[in-house]
Amino acid sequence: DFLAALDEVKPLFGASEEELEKRMLGGIIHFSGFINDILEEGRLYINQVRKPGSTPILSIALHGPPGSGKTALAAKMAIDSGFPFIKLVSSEDMVGFSEMQKVQQLDKTFRDAYKSPLSVIVIDSVEMLVDWVPIGPRFSNTVLVALKVLLGKQPPKGRRLLIFATTTERSVLTQLDLFNRFDAEIAVPNVNTQKELAHVLNHSGAFSERDQQRAISEIQEITGSAEVGVGVKKILTAIETAKQDQDVPGRFARVMSSAIAANRSSFA
Amino acid sequence: DFLAALDEVKPLFGASEEELEKRMLGGIIHFSGFINDILEEGRLYINQVRKPGSTPILSIALHGPPGSGKTALAAKMAIDSGFPFIKLVSSEDMVGFSEMQKVQQLDKTFRDAYKSPLSVIVIDSVEMLVDWVPIGPRFSNTVLVALKVLLGKQPPKGRRLLIFATTTERSVLTQLDLFNRFDAEIAVPNVNTQKELAHVLNHSGAFSERDQQRAISEIQEITGSAEVGVGVKKILTAIETAKQDQDVPGRFARVMSSAIAANRSSFA
Amino acid sequence: DFLAALDEVKPLFGASEEELEKRMLGGIIHFSGFINDILEEGRLYINQVRKPGSTPILSIALHGPPGSGKTALAAKMAIDSGFPFIKLVSSEDMVGFSEMQKVQQLDKTFRDAYKSPLSVIVIDSVEMLVDWVPIGPRFSNTVLVALKVLLGKQPPKGRRLLIFATTTERSVLTQLDLFNRFDAEIAVPNVNTQKELAHVLNHSGAFSERDQQRAISEIQEITGSAEVGVGVKKILTAIETAKQDQDVPGRFARVMSSAIAANRSSFA
Amino acid sequence: DFLAALDEVKPLFGASEEELEKRMLGGIIHFSGFINDILEEGRLYINQVRKPGSTPILSIALHGPPGSGKTALAAKMAIDSGFPFIKLVSSEDMVGFSEMQKVQQLDKTFRDAYKSPLSVIVIDSVEMLVDWVPIGPRFSNTVLVALKVLLGKQPPKGRRLLIFATTTERSVLTQLDLFNRFDAEIAVPNVNTQKELAHVLNHSGAFSERDQQRAISEIQEITGSAEVGVGVKKILTAIETAKQDQDVPGRFARVMSSAIAANRSSFA
Amino acid sequence: DFLAALDEVKPLFGASEEELEKRMLGGIIHFSGFINDILEEGRLYINQVRKPGSTPILSIALHGPPGSGKTALAAKMAIDSGFPFIKLVSSEDMVGFSEMQKVQQLDKTFRDAYKSPLSVIVIDSVEMLVDWVPIGPRFSNTVLVALKVLLGKQPPKGRRLLIFATTTERSVLTQLDLFNRFDAEIAVPNVNTQKELAHVLNHSGAFSERDQQRAISEIQEITGSAEVGVGVKKILTAIETAKQDQDVPGRFARVMSSAIAANRSSFA
Amino acid sequence: DFLAALDEVKPLFGASEEELEKRMLGGIIHFSGFINDILEEGRLYINQVRKPGSTPILSIALHGPPGSGKTALAAKMAIDSGFPFIKLVSSEDMVGFSEMQKVQQLDKTFRDAYKSPLSVIVIDSVEMLVDWVPIGPRFSNTVLVALKVLLGKQPPKGRRLLIFATTTERSVLTQLDLFNRFDAEIAVPNVNTQKELAHVLNHSGAFSERDQQRAISEIQEITGSAEVGVGVKKILTAIETAKQDQDVPGRFARVMSSAIAANRSSFA
Ligand SMILES: Nc1ncnc2c1ncn2[C@@H]1O[C@H](COP(=O)(O)OP(=O)(O)OP(=O)(O)O)[C@@H](O)[C@H]1O
Ligand SMILES: Nc1ncnc2c1ncn2[C@@H]1O[C@H](COP(=O)(O)OP(=O)(O)OP(=O)(O)O)[C@@H](O)[C@H]1O
Ligand SMILES: Nc1ncnc2c1ncn2[C@@H]1O[C@H](COP(=O)(O)OP(=O)(O)OP(=O)(O)O)[C@@H](O)[C@H]1O
Ligand SMILES: Nc1ncnc2c1ncn2[C@@H]1O[C@H](COP(=O)(O)OP(=O)(O)OP(=O)(O)O)[C@@H](O)[C@H]1O
Ligand SMILES: Nc1ncnc2c1ncn2[C@@H]1O[C@H](COP(=O)(O)OP(=O)(O)OP(=O)(O)O)[C@@H](O)[C@H]1O
Ligand SMILES: Nc1ncnc2c1ncn2[C@@H]1O[C@H](COP(=O)(O)OP(=O)(O)OP(=O)(O)O)[C@@H](O)[C@H]1O
Ligand SMILES: [Mg+2]
Ligand SMILES: [Mg+2]
Ligand SMILES: [Mg+2]
Ligand SMILES: [Mg+2]
Ligand SMILES: [Mg+2]
Ligand SMILES: [Mg+2]
Repeated sequence: DFLAALDEVKPLFGASEEELEKRMLGGIIHFSGFINDILEEGRLYINQVRKPGSTPILSIALHGPPGSGKTALAAKMAIDSGFPFIKLVSSEDMVGFSEMQKVQQLDKTFRDAYKSPLSVIVIDSVEMLVDWVPIGPRFSNTVLVALKVLLGKQPPKGRRLLIFATTTERSVLTQLDLFNRFDAEIAVPNVNTQKELAHVLNHSGAFSERDQQRAISEIQEITGSAEVGVGVKKILTAIETAKQDQDVPGRFARVMSSAIAANRSSFA
Repeated sequence: DFLAALDEVKPLFGASEEELEKRMLGGIIHFSGFINDILEEGRLYINQVRKPGSTPILSIALHGPPGSGKTALAAKMAIDSGFPFIKLVSSEDMVGFSEMQKVQQLDKTFRDAYKSPLSVIVIDSVEMLVDWVPIGPRFSNTVLVALKVLLGKQPPKGRRLLIFATTTERSVLTQLDLFNRFDAEIAVPNVNTQKELAHVLNHSGAFSERDQQRAISEIQEITGSAEVGVGVKKILTAIETAKQDQDVPGRFARVMSSAIAANRSSFA
Repeated sequence: DFLAALDEVKPLFGASEEELEKRMLGGIIHFSGFINDILEEGRLYINQVRKPGSTPILSIALHGPPGSGKTALAAKMAIDSGFPFIKLVSSEDMVGFSEMQKVQQLDKTFRDAYKSPLSVIVIDSVEMLVDWVPIGPRFSNTVLVALKVLLGKQPPKGRRLLIFATTTERSVLTQLDLFNRFDAEIAVPNVNTQKELAHVLNHSGAFSERDQQRAISEIQEITGSAEVGVGVKKILTAIETAKQDQDVPGRFARVMSSAIAANRSSFA
Repeated sequence: DFLAALDEVKPLFGASEEELEKRMLGGIIHFSGFINDILEEGRLYINQVRKPGSTPILSIALHGPPGSGKTALAAKMAIDSGFPFIKLVSSEDMVGFSEMQKVQQLDKTFRDAYKSPLSVIVIDSVEMLVDWVPIGPRFSNTVLVALKVLLGKQPPKGRRLLIFATTTERSVLTQLDLFNRFDAEIAVPNVNTQKELAHVLNHSGAFSERDQQRAISEIQEITGSAEVGVGVKKILTAIETAKQDQDVPGRFARVMSSAIAANRSSFA
Repeated sequence: DFLAALDEVKPLFGASEEELEKRMLGGIIHFSGFINDILEEGRLYINQVRKPGSTPILSIALHGPPGSGKTALAAKMAIDSGFPFIKLVSSEDMVGFSEMQKVQQLDKTFRDAYKSPLSVIVIDSVEMLVDWVPIGPRFSNTVLVALKVLLGKQPPKGRRLLIFATTTERSVLTQLDLFNRFDAEIAVPNVNTQKELAHVLNHSGAFSERDQQRAISEIQEITGSAEVGVGVKKILTAIETAKQDQDVPGRFARVMSSAIAANRSSFA
Repeated sequence: DFLAALDEVKPLFGASEEELEKRMLGGIIHFSGFINDILEEGRLYINQVRKPGSTPILSIALHGPPGSGKTALAAKMAIDSGFPFIKLVSSEDMVGFSEMQKVQQLDKTFRDAYKSPLSVIVIDSVEMLVDWVPIGPRFSNTVLVALKVLLGKQPPKGRRLLIFATTTERSVLTQLDLFNRFDAEIAVPNVNTQKELAHVLNHSGAFSERDQQRAISEIQEITGSAEVGVGVKKILTAIETAKQDQDVPGRFARVMSSAIAANRSSFA
């Protein structure tokens, strides 16, 4: 009946893998050794879940600054697991849903996963899923409680489930008493050093060696520091914008500098 | 199938362009060099989106004081793009809508846009769309979350989307954790100097050279300063009111002075 | 088609003029030069709207202390405009309405107005319309947002609209971020001096010259000041109450003094 | 058509007069000169409303400590008016009503009153009608706004309306911005002095001259003061309780003393 | 028609007396002279209500620490009244009721009572009935207002009604502005002294004279004080638990000591 | 009819025992003498309830840190009771339920239990059942009140009921005024000492004697203390994770250390 179950979930499977692949269109650039460590850590959890006799449910929180690549990395690990059921849960597919409808959608995804012997669920942007707004703060308690419960619920006998959840707001999850429901956490870093930035620029192929150096030194001049601290997603977009300008490295430096400044002020 | 898609969205297209043109009935007066810079910046983003292979969604926040011309400039840039789908989303068309109906309207607009290879959506007055009131503060979290999600959602393959959103409340967007969802921002300035004001008066053709000078020097006398700091929209209305009076420059000076005073006190 | 439109709105027209006339049953007493200035100002705005080619929507906020005559003055100016569509929007006609029903009523009134080439809408007691209570504070955000939107919305081509809105709570409108949506404001004063009070008493014909002087000097004695600071509406009611008493000037002085005291304490 | 209107409201009339009489089962004891002043004041307002040509709506707030006799006095004045329509509005008849149903009931009462040439409405215990609770504070804004509107609404031509509203919470009405909607106020006092208390005891016929003196001096002994400060309703109940005891004056003194103590502590 | 009324309410009567008897399964132990005083006080109020011509409604608040015996004493007094209609209102019969359903249940009980010439209603645990939670605080304003109104409402002619309401939260009732709606209050005490405790232990028959003394002196040793301060209900349960242990007095002492400690800390 | 009742509840019985057994898949490791004390205490309460004539309802709160084994111990005691009706109430079976549906489910479980002569209900994770979130704080007052009422409600004659409720949040229960509704409490401890930790590691059979010592001393080195303070559940999961790594004791030490650090910081 393993095959029967597999059949049953097949159509879902295909659909979702495509969805997940769309999240990593920019590829996975190994701009730092940490990227490898993260993927390695992911494989460890996948093996733990795969092993018969171990705890049948394991949940991992990926947290990191905006655009640091959390979703792409979770997607990568989910696809690499090769598990017969993989599924992305995202607010993008729930625009206009009531709180109750969101909960039902969540619940359905878990019940679908329980039908497969091995499953991965990626819950993208938890703080968005619970409608978190820092003012108030406000959030959907209904969705939050459902999440808490599902993260702790034992699958039926013989079913094993791995959950990756992404969030920019580790502290929010802590406040919501949600963070400690996860079995483990993975921190996703920004592109932090000039060397890491150079790695990304090289990979893009949009800059000559000289332009690259000019851009990096201009950024240092404008921001007054060698620290970068920007998510890889913002950098990839900045490269694209710059490519429209006549002065590619100049515009890149300006866009990056204002991103760096914005990040800094949001911590002041 | 490009043409097929074009056909499909045609009827929407016509309707919305007219709507957008109604937002710039006062024209675009180049009272300062910044106006050109803004339009130039807009063209850059339009090219970025147009280019195959680049990020398929780009969102720009236009912010500035009340009446500074945000909506007119966004309308101008949208129309100039020449994209086959352009659409204005405005609270004006949603009076009496429930929060859910607003979300459905937003969602529908985006889904319509996804049918065209190239689209521009102008989201006018974001803080109004989310029912923002400074007391409390209160706002519609339902609409806010939908906006956040839609700004980050990848269009289907082969579709590209540019979003201009206007707001008087940059700081509000920051508080709502909405500002950092935008890829870039454009600041729209007030008419700030006497020279800029003179440019607008000249353009209106309502003042003789002498009356113009009298008006400007009277304003300085009343307000005790050469700074202006009023939105171009207020100025155009003030000109109209003044034209009803026997003493055109006198009334213009009084109306402008009280507008200047009001703006100043709202920052004290 | 001007006449066609006129026909269409006729039945509404008659009904509303009567409603507006009921608001000025006490007449308009010219107890101060300001009353004339206000009516003059009103005529100016009416002309501005009437003029083809000018901004097709203009909104004026009348604010002043309770009972100072805001509603009566707005009614007077609306009737004097001679516009084919004039209409009063008042909470009095919305007792027991839900927030949504109020918004629909508002919206309908504006849509009716858009059918006439020239229209005046009087929105009476804005703070009541939005269910404002100082405790909390609480108010209907739904109605407030609808008002904001409608005040800024362009009528269809060839239609022009003037709005007078009354309020005792200028500061409340400011807090609600509503005040700056108006194009202009008119301040309505209390009866402030003994001379102004005498003017009102004379006009009522209820006092002999001597009784009048006795009443005024008694008021000064009781309140310890020559300042009056009471709305014309309260004074007209006080005259009526006094007329029931044997000692007309004596009772008038007592009623007025307690009104003056109440006003003062509400500012302490 | 005066008689026609009279006919129409007749059935309501009888019912309500009975209801009002039930509120003054303990009679009106003239324990102080103020009681007469209050009734006199009431007659003045009744005459003012009765007089053709005067303001067609007048509202009076009766406020005073719990059990001081507000409802009984309002009932008395309403009945004595002899107006063809008199009606009591009380939360007692609205147990289990939703806010909207309360508003509809209120509105209906006013619309019924508008059918009679002369009407009195007694609105009993305003703070209860608006579900006021000091914690929070909480209250029904829906009912409050309806009340405000109805107190200011002009009856149809030729109809005149007098409103008596009772409340223990003058300060609450002020906070709710409701107090200043009334045209006048009447303060209802407690039984404050030993002489006033003796008057009430005499009237009850339950005490011999000696027992009366003993009771009063015992109260002074226990409370340590000659001040009384208790509502006439509480005193009438205390007399009844005491009559069950063997030691009538002794128990009366104890019950009264604890009432006095409770009142004092609630002001500390 | 006295008998007719009696017939009508008969079926309710039987059912409710049984319900009330279930509340005093532990009997009424006279561990202190106050118990008799309370029952005596109850009889006084019963007589007052029974007497024709007196106030037809009387409400008494029984308050005291948790488990002190409030419900049992109210049940006892209600049964002893011998009134033809006696009824218990308790949240236990309203699990899963909406606020409105609770109000309707309350209202129905009062309307049933109005059919009998003499009635007693026991409202058990008022703070539970209004869903009181100290955090916030939160409570059902709907139920609270209904209670306030019903406590003050006059029964129809010839009907008399006595209400006993129990609460652990006298101060909560005060905050809710509910306490002063009661005509009188009765304080129910804890078992406070060692002598009182001994009385209860004796009555249980579970302890030899020696074990009793050992238990009491051990409690004093553990808690470091001779004060007890525990409700009789807790003591009766503690006796039962202790009887399961081999060392009956030892376990009793431990259970009691922790109860005493818990009570003390909740006042620190 | 004992057997009849037994028959009636049979189908429920089987299902629930299985559910309860799933909660103790990791067995009950006697890592400390307290584990035995807890089970002994449980037996005492079971006997108390079983004894005819004693209080027919007894409720016990099991509280302790996350993952300390509360649910497993409650399940163990429930199963060991041998009572004919045993049932688990858990939020896991209520995902997507409205507050009212939760209350109905709770109520139904209690009514089912009342049909059996002897019943145990395990209410798992009370703070989750009432949707507790520390921010605000927010929780479902509806469910909370139902719980309070059901914990205090007498079963029908001849029925006896024991309730075990688990919670990580003793202080929350106190704040919610829920804690004192329980008749007794049982504290469930963490694995606190190195000796206790060694006991658990031994039991797992995953470590050689040497690896065990290396792991423990590494933990002490990293955390700088010999204290452990982690729930047995987290330790069992950490063992599993470590088993995937090449360096089993090394990874175990790292995972444990970060758990210890997290626990400590959540108390700082
Ligand atoms: N090392 C990397 N890790 C993750 N993503 C990478 C990496 N290198 C390149 N990328 C690309 O960068 C983008 C990362 O975007 P992604 O949406 O995953 O970030 P995010 O952290 O989830 O953002 P957000 O905070 O908005 O949710 C993707 O397009 C991805 O393909
Ligand atoms: N340089 C300019 N930029 C923008 N608008 C201009 C300019 N010159 C003239 N205008 C005219 O001024 C008006 C600007 O009004 P617009 O509604 O765009 O301002 P806004 O900033 O969106 O106001 P609000 O803060 O109320 O939303 C339009 O009528 C426009 O045609
Ligand atoms: N100069 C005046 N201006 C306005 N009203 C006047 C004047 N002279 C007499 N009146 C009369 O005084 C009354 C003013 O009442 P009105 O309801 O307009 O005051 P208001 O300021 O709107 O009161 P509120 O604050 O209660 O809304 C009307 O009856 C009006 O006819
Ligand atoms: N001088 C008096 N004024 C008013 N009531 C009196 C007087 N003398 C006796 N009574 C009796 O005292 C009682 C007053 O009760 P009433 O309900 O009117 O008080 P209240 O102030 O409305 O109380 P509450 O604050 O509870 O609403 C009535 O039974 C009334 O007949
Ligand atoms: N003197 C007494 N007074 C009251 N109850 C007594 C007395 N002696 C014995 N009892 C028994 O003690 C128990 C008292 O419990 P009861 O439920 O009445 O307390 P309570 O104060 O209402 O508790 P709670 O605060 O939980 O509502 C009953 O079983 C009752 O029969
Ligand atoms: N002595 C023990 N006590 C309890 N559980 C134990 C013990 N020894 C091993 N276990 C196992 O440890 C796990 C304890 O998990 P359980 O869910 O009961 O903890 P919990 O305290 O209820 O957690 P949570 O705080 O998440 O509700 C179970 O798998 C159980 O079989
Ligand atoms: Mg992401
Ligand atoms: Mg705009
Ligand atoms: Mg007015
Ligand atoms: Mg009253
Ligand atoms: Mg009780
Ligand atoms: Mg548990």
